[in-house]
Amino acid sequence: MYAPPVQRLITELGRLPGVGQRTAQRLAFHLLRAEREEAFALADAIREVKERVGLCEICFNLADEPRCRICQDERRDATVICVVEEPGDVVPVERTHEYRGRYHVLGGALSPIDGIDPDDLKIAELYARVADQEPRVTEVVLATNPTTTGEATALHIATALRERSPELTITRLASGLPVGGDLEYADEVTLGRALAGRRAI
Amino acid sequence: MYAPPVQRLITELGRLPGVGQRTAQRLAFHLLRAEREEAFALADAIREVKERVGLCEICFNLADEPRCRICQDERRDATVICVVEEPGDVVPVERTHEYRGRYHVLGGALSPIDGIDPDDLKIAELYARVADQEPRVTEVVLATNPTTTGEATALHIATALRERSPELTITRLASGLPVGGDLEYADEVTLGRALAGRRAI
Repeated sequence: MYAPPVQRLITELGRLPGVGQRTAQRLAFHLLRAEREEAFALADAIREVKERVGLCEICFNLADEPRCRICQDERRDATVICVVEEPGDVVPVERTHEYRGRYHVLGGALSPIDGIDPDDLKIAELYARVADQEPRVTEVVLATNPTTTGEATALHIATALRERSPELTITRLASGLPVGGDLEYADEVTLGRALAGRRAI
Repeated sequence: MYAPPVQRLITELGRLPGVGQRTAQRLAFHLLRAEREEAFALADAIREVKERVGLCEICFNLADEPRCRICQDERRDATVICVVEEPGDVVPVERTHEYRGRYHVLGGALSPIDGIDPDDLKIAELYARVADQEPRVTEVVLATNPTTTGEATALHIATALRERSPELTITRLASGLPVGGDLEYADEVTLGRALAGRRAI
């Protein structure tokens, strides 16, 4: 019903996650009405990101150079490594301004049901960093998601690291009530974790 | 916090309507993970639509040739013109399979508050079609939206057309209860219109 280029754009937009047929149409009509420059800027940004952005050779975070900006930053403490599942998990940790160490991006979480084994993640590369890096890694913070697969991944890595480097400190992010949350609406697992992890004040 | 090309993509995606910072990030990470071909197909579709799609010289619907496919189609009844606000309004009318005439896309609705005057819309072009076209136009269906601006636009055009071509049939889409709707939940304006427009069965 649409001119072929319009139909093609709607189809391509509809492949994006959370974008249904209706939303794709709305976005397509927006782009049709938009200034040529604005639409081209989006098209170019998509191309550029695929052409120029790869993974950091050390930590596998996104990088437009061989090494990401955090691994290039000499002021970041190389003795502490924060292990996250996805590149998108680095930014929320950075936003806290509480962390001055480096990162290691696994590229996912272990999930036997989905066929994701340790070999599919950058786990061997993490062990190599812990074993070989100079300066020596003293702490690994396991910041995988507090989900079944994230917990399983953290446990798997913790067990292996403890065997390989008994002197290494291995930590996990605290689970508990979100700040601003309400006991009444907390699920029992989260509240149980908050109780188990209670701290003296 | 992101590599510059990633930040640029998030910014550009965030300009789309209904796409906030969070959604833009999610879409950007999807494109980063996606196959190169999929991402490039989207970028190319955006470019192509801006380069190849313009407005039909007769009805101002979207077209990738000088004339849109409906205006090119000799089987469509040229004596009836359905007037809509936006190119996106043509497709829902087409989907009904109830309409075999041609279209005229105004490019918006009259809205003095937003500074949209008759000169900003393709209203003069509609009058010219009605006055000069061969075969002669016998009916104009005013299918602008049933909103304040849409109604005002329909009234404005109806008044002018009646003056210029007294023999022309001018119609407006019926307002009433949506099929599958429920009287209990109908707003009083819609229900009032449904009553006023009641038909013998």
